[in-house]
Amino acid sequence: MTGPCFISFFLLFNLLPFFQTLEASHCSIKGLPLVRNIADLPQDNYGRGGLSHITVAGSLLHGLKEVEVWLQTFAPGSRTPIHRHSCEEVFVVLKGSGTLYLASSSNKYPGKPEEHFIFSNSTFHIPVNDVHQVWNTNEHEDLQMLVIISRPPIKVYVIFLLSRFASTFSPLVDGCPFVFPLSS
Amino acid sequence: MTGPCFISFFLLFNLLPFFQTLEASHCSIKGLPLVRNIADLPQDNYGRGGLSHITVAGSLLHGLKEVEVWLQTFAPGSRTPIHRHSCEEVFVVLKGSGTLYLASSSNKYPGKPEEHFIFSNSTFHIPVNDVHQVWNTNEHEDLQMLVIISRPPIKVYVIFLLSRFASTFSPLVDGCPFVFPLSS
Repeated sequence: MTGPCFISFFLLFNLLPFFQTLEASHCSIKGLPLVRNIADLPQDNYGRGGLSHITVAGSLLHGLKEVEVWLQTFAPGSRTPIHRHSCEEVFVVLKGSGTLYLASSSNKYPGKPEEHFIFSNSTFHIPVNDVHQVWNTNEHEDLQMLVIISRPPIKVYVIFLLSRFASTFSPLVDGCPFVFPLSS
Repeated sequence: MTGPCFISFFLLFNLLPFFQTLEASHCSIKGLPLVRNIADLPQDNYGRGGLSHITVAGSLLHGLKEVEVWLQTFAPGSRTPIHRHSCEEVFVVLKGSGTLYLASSSNKYPGKPEEHFIFSNSTFHIPVNDVHQVWNTNEHEDLQMLVIISRPPIKVYVIFLLSRFASTFSPLVDGCPFVFPLSS
């Protein structure tokens, strides 16, 4: 186990497809123009403060079956949950900078995840099922990224932290400990 | 047939994966940083004047199996060939404007393809196997787009025009005529 103060588990986090289903109910593919102005597309934060999520091209909204494209903007200090998903994911950073935390599933005993600086006009990708988190650690600027995933609609496994007193936590991922910074 | 002046056919156009194989031979995934500056990535025009193609995240270069992301810039007047491919494709226009010509395979007798104005901060996608062409019809500005495809590496079926005297041509696509503007 990871220690007495921490409890971790995975949850099949299906909120994103759920909300997309709601959007799709009043915005079918038949009624949408082929060329769409991204500035006119609906955005949501899915309950995460500091997040703006726009589905640029999606499965439920636009009928795609193999890829999905999002535009995500994170206000300073905001971040994704620590999570993994059974699909490929590519990021293109359009504005701002931040930090990627990545715990590769290919390491048997990964310990602390790798920490990578991400910046405007950079790109990176997350291998299938690798646990990761993207954090806008720039205090002065939004972090805006195009995010591309395969196998839509996405199912995200979020790793929850139950202790509010921890500065780090160590979820077990397939039997191996990962130490991430504190995150809700 | 489409007329006495025109000869059209499809060719399995495998040059793009071929060149990527060459690049991959001296730039393996093991040697690449996880976070890459797009400005530092190699670019090529694959023999098409006015094109700059950068593989932002690719199958042969970066080990992706389900999606691939390109940054393509077209100088004024330049364009893709008229082509189709057996994968999904999403475009995000970052700069400039131009024209999308799209002949939907869902129309039995499509005639002249649909003509769509594309512009900065717009998005559109091409259904699997629909014949299309993207053209920078803006005389004053580059057209720059992020292009996302599924099922990499891509195999493109290009429609060639053999007559240099035609102003339009009508290739047969699955037995149906499509009338595109002149293109090499």
